[in-house]
Amino acid sequence: MHGHLEQELAHLKERLLQMAVRAEAATRQAIQAFAERDHDLAIRVKEQDSILDRFEVEIDNEAIHILAKAPLAGDLRFVTVAMKISQNLERVGDEAAKIAKRARDLSKEPPLKLNLDLKAMADLALSMLKRALDAFVESNPAAARAVLPMDQQVDAMHKQIRRALVEHMQQYPETIPQCLDVLTAAKCLERIADHATNIAEDVVYMCEALDIRHAPKSSTSAANDSTR
Amino acid sequence: MHGHLEQELAHLKERLLQMAVRAEAATRQAIQAFAERDHDLAIRVKEQDSILDRFEVEIDNEAIHILAKAPLAGDLRFVTVAMKISQNLERVGDEAAKIAKRARDLSKEPPLKLNLDLKAMADLALSMLKRALDAFVESNPAAARAVLPMDQQVDAMHKQIRRALVEHMQQYPETIPQCLDVLTAAKCLERIADHATNIAEDVVYMCEALDIRHAPKSSTSAANDSTR
Repeated sequence: MHGHLEQELAHLKERLLQMAVRAEAATRQAIQAFAERDHDLAIRVKEQDSILDRFEVEIDNEAIHILAKAPLAGDLRFVTVAMKISQNLERVGDEAAKIAKRARDLSKEPPLKLNLDLKAMADLALSMLKRALDAFVESNPAAARAVLPMDQQVDAMHKQIRRALVEHMQQYPETIPQCLDVLTAAKCLERIADHATNIAEDVVYMCEALDIRHAPKSSTSAANDSTR
Repeated sequence: MHGHLEQELAHLKERLLQMAVRAEAATRQAIQAFAERDHDLAIRVKEQDSILDRFEVEIDNEAIHILAKAPLAGDLRFVTVAMKISQNLERVGDEAAKIAKRARDLSKEPPLKLNLDLKAMADLALSMLKRALDAFVESNPAAARAVLPMDQQVDAMHKQIRRALVEHMQQYPETIPQCLDVLTAAKCLERIADHATNIAEDVVYMCEALDIRHAPKSSTSAANDSTR
């Protein structure tokens, strides 16, 4: 019976990782559609969002099934954290779909004469996501904590892009609708980084039974400074 | 022992409702600070966000404590749904804090000559939240389903506000930064309506063990058309 639970936990973890691969791919493709003004790719990304939706429902079902077997404290934390991670990944997919929608709209408009590095912001946000998931797989709270400060870098990039767009809009008011589309895409990337942060915090909680989600910033970087 | 579990479940529900009252109050105050250009009220709303953060941590702890006692299927669903509702309420609080931040910034700028009904949008979003929570308290899936179509009304109001702001920005490019603040506040209200929708869907799931979160739109309005 215990061996069976182990198998179910391993399967849950595997499904989460497959879901993460999908969420990352969706974001990369959405940003590619954005950069290359690729209307068809944008449509495909939007259509594939339902795959992540199904993953979330399926993972929730598996998790509830396992919870009904009264797992021990460690496994209980693992399962509730898996449910939270899956919810975050589903929302990463929603953000990717929103970026794709903006890419679709923008592909029909004349290109903006403005060089903004959304790709670099996407790379950083996705690197946070990958590290948070790796930390989950390895049950490595130190690796999870290392993700947290990266969020500030993403926020700084977002602010820089916002500033450049405001300037551009003031100079060329006729481009305001397109600039707002770019601003929305940047905001979506910022939210993806927030989801990666949520996952990293949940991994620390899972490993240490320590809730750092709303702790003051200073205590989130110190390892093992308190337990409950 | 069973009586004790009942008490713990009742306490969890009570804490969730207290949290909901706080989340609603924070949103109302943020919108008031916005409308009345009240700098001090905006600051207070931002500061109080930590109360909702603590609620979320506390409710998670209570929920995990109950899950460790291997509750029956119905209670198991109740507890996992309570965790999801608390996460959504915490994010309602985040959106209220973001609105407050924009209200704080705007209170220092000259007022926009533009009459936008953010209050009506807030009323509708908060009415969705209240109905979703009432449906949770009464375990009433029909009442929860009735919340879902309201989200489209909120989306329509958001689009209308966005359109008016784009026009205003094109006509008066010097007001672009302020207009973006208003746009962000409207977006926050739209997200609060999304959280209310999530809660309503979770209530249906809790009552009927039927996951409607990612079902096609048509099936979400039909009561009891399938179970699993």
